[in-house]
Amino acid sequence: MDVEDTVKKLNLKFRNIEGERLILAITCDENKNVLMVAFMNEEALKKTLETGYMHYYSTSRKKLWRKGEESGNVQKLIKFYRDCDGDALLFIVEQKGVACHEGYYSCFHYKIEDGELKITGEYYSKR
Amino acid sequence: MDVEDTVKKLNLKFRNIEGERLILAITCDENKNVLMVAFMNEEALKKTLETGYMHYYSTSRKKLWRKGEESGNVQKLIKFYRDCDGDALLFIVEQKGVACHEGYYSCFHYKIEDGELKITGEYYSKR
Repeated sequence: MDVEDTVKKLNLKFRNIEGERLILAITCDENKNVLMVAFMNEEALKKTLETGYMHYYSTSRKKLWRKGEESGNVQKLIKFYRDCDGDALLFIVEQKGVACHEGYYSCFHYKIEDGELKITGEYYSKR
Repeated sequence: MDVEDTVKKLNLKFRNIEGERLILAITCDENKNVLMVAFMNEEALKKTLETGYMHYYSTSRKKLWRKGEESGNVQKLIKFYRDCDGDALLFIVEQKGVACHEGYYSCFHYKIEDGELKITGEYYSKR
């Protein structure tokens, strides 16, 4: 894959997010569980396509990060999709270990029940 | 559900997106297909919880919109989750008709194959 060429053909609509030019990256496993959502700048996208492993852009640390660089919980890219208006990509990955830094399989492990935030084992906190 | 109280308990981290205070809203069907991702301001979230139907915030039109208000393709809220850092919600909905204004079931119907953008019937363009 010619990464420069692919990124051009994606015709992405970068958004002004926290003062940076970013797109949304939704990451799912092969069973369609949503693992996380994060941001990507063009460099993070290129690194992802070049290496085959997910890279994101951290708005708080203002830098590129390779998912799992400290925890070892890397995400191997399998395939990806673009949405209709081009400001979001959906990545299907093979998740090593867990996606969430809080130790849960998915970052979406807080369920809202009866108006309360509850950590739940249901649906998004397990494979 | 006391909507004001629930929104407070969600303890959301609104992001500066296109100059507005917004969160990310990922919407999936009951089979875990990702239908779309859009933005919500606090008003859109409250309207969603009050009415039981998805409302988003359009950054281009700079206004609240009720999903399906013109097409009739409304999204009935079933349940929802918050992510670990509080800048995103994941909504599980019952989708009437199709989610995408281009006529596809999901907005993520462009697959990237061999570096090319292809409209695909696979995975995200059908139930």
